[in-house]
Amino acid sequence: MTKEEEEEKLELPKVLRAKKKELSEWYHQILFLADIVDIRYNLKGMNVWKNYGYETMLNLKRYWDYVFKKNGLKELYFPQIVPIEYCEQNPEWWSGFKEQGFKVIAGEKDEIQGALRPTGEAAMYPMYAMWIKTFRDLPLRAYETVSSFRYETRHTRPLIRDREITLWHEIHTVHATKEDCLKEAQNHIEYYKQLWDFVAVHPVIVDKPGWELFPGAIGGIEFYNITPDGKAMENGSVNILGQAYAKKFNIKFKDKEGKENIGWQVCTGNGARLLAAALIQHGDDKGLVLPPNIAPYQVVVVPILFEKEKEIIMKNVEKLKEMFENAGIRVLLDDREETPGRKFYDWEIKGVPLRAEIGPEDIKKNQVVIVKRNDGKKIAIKKELFISEANSLLKTIQEELLKKSQKETAERIGYADSLKKMEELLEKGKCVKINWCKKGECYDRVKAVKEGAEIFGSDYYEKKKGRCIACDEETDNLAYVAKTY
Amino acid sequence: MTKEEEEEKLELPKVLRAKKKELSEWYHQILFLADIVDIRYNLKGMNVWKNYGYETMLNLKRYWDYVFKKNGLKELYFPQIVPIEYCEQNPEWWSGFKEQGFKVIAGEKDEIQGALRPTGEAAMYPMYAMWIKTFRDLPLRAYETVSSFRYETRHTRPLIRDREITLWHEIHTVHATKEDCLKEAQNHIEYYKQLWDFVAVHPVIVDKPGWELFPGAIGGIEFYNITPDGKAMENGSVNILGQAYAKKFNIKFKDKEGKENIGWQVCTGNGARLLAAALIQHGDDKGLVLPPNIAPYQVVVVPILFEKEKEIIMKNVEKLKEMFENAGIRVLLDDREETPGRKFYDWEIKGVPLRAEIGPEDIKKNQVVIVKRNDGKKIAIKKELFISEANSLLKTIQEELLKKSQKETAERIGYADSLKKMEELLEKGKCVKINWCKKGECYDRVKAVKEGAEIFGSDYYEKKKGRCIACDEETDNLAYVAKTY
Repeated sequence: MTKEEEEEKLELPKVLRAKKKELSEWYHQILFLADIVDIRYNLKGMNVWKNYGYETMLNLKRYWDYVFKKNGLKELYFPQIVPIEYCEQNPEWWSGFKEQGFKVIAGEKDEIQGALRPTGEAAMYPMYAMWIKTFRDLPLRAYETVSSFRYETRHTRPLIRDREITLWHEIHTVHATKEDCLKEAQNHIEYYKQLWDFVAVHPVIVDKPGWELFPGAIGGIEFYNITPDGKAMENGSVNILGQAYAKKFNIKFKDKEGKENIGWQVCTGNGARLLAAALIQHGDDKGLVLPPNIAPYQVVVVPILFEKEKEIIMKNVEKLKEMFENAGIRVLLDDREETPGRKFYDWEIKGVPLRAEIGPEDIKKNQVVIVKRNDGKKIAIKKELFISEANSLLKTIQEELLKKSQKETAERIGYADSLKKMEELLEKGKCVKINWCKKGECYDRVKAVKEGAEIFGSDYYEKKKGRCIACDEETDNLAYVAKTY
Repeated sequence: MTKEEEEEKLELPKVLRAKKKELSEWYHQILFLADIVDIRYNLKGMNVWKNYGYETMLNLKRYWDYVFKKNGLKELYFPQIVPIEYCEQNPEWWSGFKEQGFKVIAGEKDEIQGALRPTGEAAMYPMYAMWIKTFRDLPLRAYETVSSFRYETRHTRPLIRDREITLWHEIHTVHATKEDCLKEAQNHIEYYKQLWDFVAVHPVIVDKPGWELFPGAIGGIEFYNITPDGKAMENGSVNILGQAYAKKFNIKFKDKEGKENIGWQVCTGNGARLLAAALIQHGDDKGLVLPPNIAPYQVVVVPILFEKEKEIIMKNVEKLKEMFENAGIRVLLDDREETPGRKFYDWEIKGVPLRAEIGPEDIKKNQVVIVKRNDGKKIAIKKELFISEANSLLKTIQEELLKKSQKETAERIGYADSLKKMEELLEKGKCVKINWCKKGECYDRVKAVKEGAEIFGSDYYEKKKGRCIACDEETDNLAYVAKTY
């Protein structure tokens, strides 16, 4: 999509499109209306994070920092320009990015200085090779959060396919043995499950088809979220690199006997797509529905003002705000000179989990009226119980959103035991689970059924006895078929 | 300096050079030995943040996030590539960066995509122009933390002059009136004072000479730290842009009467130089001395092990570590299989503020021996008093470091009332304070005295009656003369 087309799609300031009917338009509009990003920055695939969106994303980032560091991963930072000679140490890797690569020039003669990092390997591994000398230096377990740059020629879509992929994290670990390497991959999967829980979205976890692995890798696990239209969004991958990259980048270590060995590696990465998954999963026709964990404001306090009682109501809402702050709840007091209706509308678009209202009636009754954004339920709570109730409501909302996501993800996936049934389900906008024997020719036959739909992986955990949908061979492997983002 | 020369300077693994005698070498060595940055990344002026250095820097960054947000500044993020047409909206600004600019190319024909951001104005202000329509949209008070890129042709020096300037923050605000704009500049000065206190370094605050202001700006305040050799390091600047940039970038607003007005702007920025100032100010011949506020570990616990009592000592140090953690003190238990001496050495290089030792004698006496990194004082503390004592010691160290910095900064500055005396003081490695009438010709005469030494600004607060050191005219303006970084 060109920048102009993207802008047209916004059709501001019209009312938000219905999410169910026009998901793609809804997504573009809500990013703008809820102040997540501004796409009017005049470069394709490069957008401005507005404050509300950025704070939401930073809550997620802070959580991955917490999870990674708690588990002993060390945060590092590598320069964003990668020397070409580093890139060329792994020609296969580099050729994969050459066309999609931004290069950086400078100086009087516009000499090439390097590549703008498409991903971290080529920046990091030459340094890893310097740092790792003996078995004592292993495991090396590190990560960084930084932008990645891809000169995408396909349609771009904010947070989903950007040319500057902002707030992208990469974990890169090196181990002495294959066993340690495989164990580490399991750790990364566990960290990612925590991130998915944090945004209250239920992912599908798959084994990559062998031919889609990084060149030389010995395994790859990918996370996908299934959107309401049955499409699958790749959303985080754990790549068991084995020794392929270590060989290219010369990551070697002396073992206890002084013998030289090659390191075993895992690399794992994801970023703002996690947020995109949450926005798309939880939002509704009124706007965003943010999980309390990532909401910049977990509660918005709205005074219902009448001239006569203005002073006492303002005193009460200010006190309420203070109570929230003291309880560690992120709160905003909306004291703008707007009608309550206007304020409700604004904060519904932005998806604030709880709205607390205080009007003259509530003061008489010594209560606060609270409205849950996710289901619109209105609850009157006595003031003295308020903080504990608010805390438990936030927890409840987080759980409700996750349960809803689990349920809906299951509903978005249908099982087919024939290509005909598979096609029907795809037509209905479902993601389809099939038995598949893992052979390339059967992959191709499945892919030929419906344009754009293909196998994106095999369920990492679930097995089911059956016959390959294409060749009828017995197999317990379950694969997923869908259009992908 | 070339990369090779830089590497040579490290002369690893020899012992750290004496800081007083060879400050520049000491600085290069300590960055490497204390795991702050690794300069072996093969691009001039681009270095890898190692974990210890990065965590130190992130503690500082977290604090500026805290200060800025507490004061209502909103964090944003703008793409790192700036469209050339945005740059060209302010030709004066752009021409200043053209030679030092990195440009980004991509696509089959290597088309120019934009400039790699040298600083934020050209990326931000075209968006500001879209966001600001009426007086209701003002003030706009925002900041971002992001890398800046300069193709420096001069010697580079890690954290001080880099080609990728990492963890750089920029505050950009827009106001309806000049008065608001000037008031905001004062706010920024106050925020910066808090950052300087946080790293326990005493800055010199100056008014920029008029001809060094940003083109069209109406004022500029700069922070400098004075290093032990009497040199001045520019370290943060508050630029009162007035309306100059707003005119170029079309930042206009309708006032209450519907009349169109031009916005008033302040932009303010700094980054890792603050850390460099702290490392240089506090370090000694044994290594770094980190202020507790930014130290990744505020305490390192070292068990003094003898085979017989090993178990009970380990139990005690582990409990101690837990106590620290529960008290919110950042702690590391060094349980490596190394001698205590080796551990002391390592953590002295890294500048951990407190070292806590427990040996068999201490267990008998129910005490912990604590050593302050900044002055080497050894204190035995009864175990039950330990946490409160440790907390108060950390506070004390922070204060001691700041006081020492205030005292030493004062000692590094001498006053001269003649050019001859000024020259003598400069020869002695002092920064020199002089009376200066603010005229350009007198500036030139001062500059001619000693190569490399020049007036870098006038004291922002202090006035003193006297006569211009060059023309003998009466003036109460006090200027600073030094070699600058």
